[in-house]
Amino acid sequence: MSWLEKSIMRQRGVAQGRQAVTHELTEAKQGNYHYTIGPYSQPVLSVKPGDRIIVETRDAFEGKVKTEQDLPSKVLTMPFVNPQNGPIMIEGAEPGDVVAVYIESIAPRGPNPRGTCAMIPEFGALSATMFTSLLTQPLPEIVRKIDVDEKGVYWSKRVTLPYKPHIGTLSCSPLLDSINTLTPDTHGGNMDLPDMGPGSITYLPVCTDGARVFIGDAHACQGDGEVCGTAVEFQSTTTIQVDLIKNWAITWPRLETEHMIMAIGSARPLEDATRIAYKDLVLWMEAEFGFDRWDAYMMLSQCGKVRLGNFVDPKYTVGAGILKTYLKD
Amino acid sequence: MSWLEKSIMRQRGVAQGRQAVTHELTEAKQGNYHYTIGPYSQPVLSVKPGDRIIVETRDAFEGKVKTEQDLPSKVLTMPFVNPQNGPIMIEGAEPGDVVAVYIESIAPRGPNPRGTCAMIPEFGALSATMFTSLLTQPLPEIVRKIDVDEKGVYWSKRVTLPYKPHIGTLSCSPLLDSINTLTPDTHGGNMDLPDMGPGSITYLPVCTDGARVFIGDAHACQGDGEVCGTAVEFQSTTTIQVDLIKNWAITWPRLETEHMIMAIGSARPLEDATRIAYKDLVLWMEAEFGFDRWDAYMMLSQCGKVRLGNFVDPKYTVGAGILKTYLKD
Amino acid sequence: MSWLEKSIMRQRGVAQGRQAVTHELTEAKQGNYHYTIGPYSQPVLSVKPGDRIIVETRDAFEGKVKTEQDLPSKVLTMPFVNPQNGPIMIEGAEPGDVVAVYIESIAPRGPNPRGTCAMIPEFGALSATMFTSLLTQPLPEIVRKIDVDEKGVYWSKRVTLPYKPHIGTLSCSPLLDSINTLTPDTHGGNMDLPDMGPGSITYLPVCTDGARVFIGDAHACQGDGEVCGTAVEFQSTTTIQVDLIKNWAITWPRLETEHMIMAIGSARPLEDATRIAYKDLVLWMEAEFGFDRWDAYMMLSQCGKVRLGNFVDPKYTVGAGILKTYLKD
Amino acid sequence: MSWLEKSIMRQRGVAQGRQAVTHELTEAKQGNYHYTIGPYSQPVLSVKPGDRIIVETRDAFEGKVKTEQDLPSKVLTMPFVNPQNGPIMIEGAEPGDVVAVYIESIAPRGPNPRGTCAMIPEFGALSATMFTSLLTQPLPEIVRKIDVDEKGVYWSKRVTLPYKPHIGTLSCSPLLDSINTLTPDTHGGNMDLPDMGPGSITYLPVCTDGARVFIGDAHACQGDGEVCGTAVEFQSTTTIQVDLIKNWAITWPRLETEHMIMAIGSARPLEDATRIAYKDLVLWMEAEFGFDRWDAYMMLSQCGKVRLGNFVDPKYTVGAGILKTYLKD
Repeated sequence: MSWLEKSIMRQRGVAQGRQAVTHELTEAKQGNYHYTIGPYSQPVLSVKPGDRIIVETRDAFEGKVKTEQDLPSKVLTMPFVNPQNGPIMIEGAEPGDVVAVYIESIAPRGPNPRGTCAMIPEFGALSATMFTSLLTQPLPEIVRKIDVDEKGVYWSKRVTLPYKPHIGTLSCSPLLDSINTLTPDTHGGNMDLPDMGPGSITYLPVCTDGARVFIGDAHACQGDGEVCGTAVEFQSTTTIQVDLIKNWAITWPRLETEHMIMAIGSARPLEDATRIAYKDLVLWMEAEFGFDRWDAYMMLSQCGKVRLGNFVDPKYTVGAGILKTYLKD
Repeated sequence: MSWLEKSIMRQRGVAQGRQAVTHELTEAKQGNYHYTIGPYSQPVLSVKPGDRIIVETRDAFEGKVKTEQDLPSKVLTMPFVNPQNGPIMIEGAEPGDVVAVYIESIAPRGPNPRGTCAMIPEFGALSATMFTSLLTQPLPEIVRKIDVDEKGVYWSKRVTLPYKPHIGTLSCSPLLDSINTLTPDTHGGNMDLPDMGPGSITYLPVCTDGARVFIGDAHACQGDGEVCGTAVEFQSTTTIQVDLIKNWAITWPRLETEHMIMAIGSARPLEDATRIAYKDLVLWMEAEFGFDRWDAYMMLSQCGKVRLGNFVDPKYTVGAGILKTYLKD
Repeated sequence: MSWLEKSIMRQRGVAQGRQAVTHELTEAKQGNYHYTIGPYSQPVLSVKPGDRIIVETRDAFEGKVKTEQDLPSKVLTMPFVNPQNGPIMIEGAEPGDVVAVYIESIAPRGPNPRGTCAMIPEFGALSATMFTSLLTQPLPEIVRKIDVDEKGVYWSKRVTLPYKPHIGTLSCSPLLDSINTLTPDTHGGNMDLPDMGPGSITYLPVCTDGARVFIGDAHACQGDGEVCGTAVEFQSTTTIQVDLIKNWAITWPRLETEHMIMAIGSARPLEDATRIAYKDLVLWMEAEFGFDRWDAYMMLSQCGKVRLGNFVDPKYTVGAGILKTYLKD
Repeated sequence: MSWLEKSIMRQRGVAQGRQAVTHELTEAKQGNYHYTIGPYSQPVLSVKPGDRIIVETRDAFEGKVKTEQDLPSKVLTMPFVNPQNGPIMIEGAEPGDVVAVYIESIAPRGPNPRGTCAMIPEFGALSATMFTSLLTQPLPEIVRKIDVDEKGVYWSKRVTLPYKPHIGTLSCSPLLDSINTLTPDTHGGNMDLPDMGPGSITYLPVCTDGARVFIGDAHACQGDGEVCGTAVEFQSTTTIQVDLIKNWAITWPRLETEHMIMAIGSARPLEDATRIAYKDLVLWMEAEFGFDRWDAYMMLSQCGKVRLGNFVDPKYTVGAGILKTYLKD
């Protein structure tokens, strides 16, 4: 039995044994992409738990940065960035449930160079920004176009990076708020977490009937923290399978892979994001893996793993994880 | 000539000399109050620049905390708190303009005790919270009902505080986002700034046609920082006059009183809110009061005034001000 | 009876009625000034509780910035800045006691222009710094020399600011650490709090036998937050009276004026400094003014006053105060 | 040629080819351990670049927590914790140089159970603390004694963790300050970085003649962030080799292993520690590995690795690293 069959999604999801239907959410079917995650947009697709969806995501620049001369400050208009597919309605989803999103694969799409990385004025962790608001001059604005295929990210003559794609933005809709696609929070959003790649399952709390899943912002690879503000942004064909877990009251997103479970927090300052993630992991170990609360807390002090997703978005994202091997009875 | 006639609102607003119409926005006329600030709700009123509006605001608990036994965790359902009047459409307002809101008066409304203060679990600056997320036990949940009239806030047998009301939440709608009423940001929102009382003018950037003004959350008085998380919350009759300044490109809210101008920033951590406010004040002094940028910066280091609005909301709010006397040529 | 006679210092200090001796701590007597606050330096003076000391402080630049052409990066050598007088030994002081420092007067000293303000590379709240470490270019380095007398601070042709002096750095020695004079902490240090002027009493926890008091860093005036990183720095003749309160276990500095008591916290991020100050004020009101803890907390949410000392030093300083009028039985 | 021979230490250190002498710094020879890192303590050893030193470190509790009944609040007296060996004088070291410390091995010392982990009141990332100062009740105080050998850390019946030791605290003395052993900063200090184990080389900036190296605080294993505030603290026999690199002007500590180089920052809030580390890594890649500054910045956004050392100490520590494979020409 593969790890996937033993995953929380498969053990607790309602899809159990149902024969999956595969849907295609092409650019044409999507039509208008979305720049906020909320309850006010028109659904593009309705699926059953267990269904597969092949999604054509656009890159975070909407494909407008075609050459290294297309400066973001010229070709982009805020807040029309990081376009999202969706909302996808999950049949039977209600507030209090959890949607599970298993990422089967992420493939590059369209002609090369597919990847785009940019230094954008007043954006990025080593720049003054709209929030860390200083009187300094902006850093230079620079665009890099990068060839990408499933074997590598051809960064420069000198360096080829491994192709390790992930989804930067994955969400269920909040109940009332409509949140721009740059911000991560309890609903998921722009977490930019490298672990959210093929072979991972993300668990998102449901706040509205039908859940209203949004997805987008594929990265061909990304370092911890996404320090300059952008990854190797590219348009992708991303295949996911969704499932529904009834009555699992979680507040923040969680993630599962073959070897690890991870709790995810998004906040500023960065220590608060880390606190959220670690606290949620402690309570998860207590509630579902038979640990005493303080034993879990002290043990994570010895074996917890922290992943910095981003420290450039309006909220920063941190995952706190533990190897499954330490969760066994 | 009163200071008001020399204010930025009067000097640059389009209302110049127009005979004001007074509108009433009663509870009945408002009907449904709003829990998010955004472009998706139905306008309740349309006014011309220069018009006065008498607004019946509800308290942040929607009147549900009637006695000291009505614990917030029992009678409230998140996110249905801090209800807002509006949206009020301002004729002629377009993105790139500024709406000016002059607060003429704030009077208590309804039967005594009108004021409510509460310690709410996992809320407040000296408590662990949803974001500063710890494994500690919550503080006790306590409600205080307080008599309030226009002469005083009768806190306890021992202490009577002055009646110094202000508006906690004042906003124009964002372009796409719909933001919960607990959060302050560039659109205004839940700033909880004690300076925003009768005799103040708040300037808000317009992001949508008609501006879509929201107002609510009156406080009978409030200390700097609103440390326990709530002020003396009360329902009010608040009289405002609105005006429109065309083509004034500001990013964050600003405020003017008889003696001071103030720039307002909202962010976490608190130093970032303060940076936003001070930077905006420096640039304002440079752009409109004839100061050299570095002279303004260095001079504020000698005479700038900081007001901590709140450090309990999802973003913290700080005002940075300077006396008008130092702005004279 | 003046407020001073009713102050905590006079009510609880050991000096009661003792005839004060006045000491002079001139530049010559001081000899070497100090760049760290700690237990390893040689005392320059020993005084009894109740004694007055007339201290000749040097400015934070050690007098090396004589003209507007003397750029700090040229004439200063880190960490040899912010020189301190002391250590002054207080007879009878032991760990667990509190030293009270009443500031009687601060007078300018030396030839005009006495005041110096500077923008120093990688320093100041709207600059990248050593800690908020960015890839931006530094702001320009600028020096301002300012005439100062006891009637005014003659900032520019356009602006004269009031002479409102205070002491930027005031400390008792830590037990083991020796802390640079730029950093505030539990020992006092570089708090840059405008309230610490003539007519104020500062209470500092004693950690070593004799207390080892250090003082320096007079400012002719300063805005909230000291935003550009420096105040109007000047050399002064500062007259203080010291007293000793036995067995008053405080952790952080506190301050008293005619109208107010204030608790002082220093930390990063800024919300932590504010938390420290407000928590200490709550516990102080509970321990010594007969308030229930939660009543104090909720009441400060209505009438607490926050002063931002600095948000430019290695730790930021905040004072949280309450008017004495609200402390009466 | 092993990686070590190609390391920066071996390539640029002055020891080149010199026959190493091995020194023993036993508990007896150390005598008094130190609780601050500074220039005021008496050297215990003087060595030449290239020499090996076998150091008997004590655990962070000084061995006082012998059983699970020995509560830290009972048996410890602040600030007498985290005792350090040293200062060790490095012959020829001058300000502007760098000391390299290669960790050869860390072996457990003394009778089992050797490891101690504790939840200490008002300490730890998911507790209110002295700085994140709240009105909540402390978490329970709990001590765990853990058997440790070189094959494993026997955490509980259920869980055995791998033995992956590292040194928590490693420093050169500051020029004037004497810094408590709980705080990391530019001098090194209490970084609690799991990468600082056998097979790593740490580079520390020299601020005083002779460098004055301090070492202590061995951990049998530690999770990212040391979330409860303590690792598996144990007394060790740690063997190091030191070398000296002349005229290498670095500001913050750096680290090298077989596969990676890492820059290390310590600050609050946590994003500032991360900024320091990433900025230093960018500048290092530019200065010594032939990268254009912006290419390095953008490339780290794709392949940078972040390690959270601790987010519990007075300053938090982050390492930002890059695989050596990407540094090749």
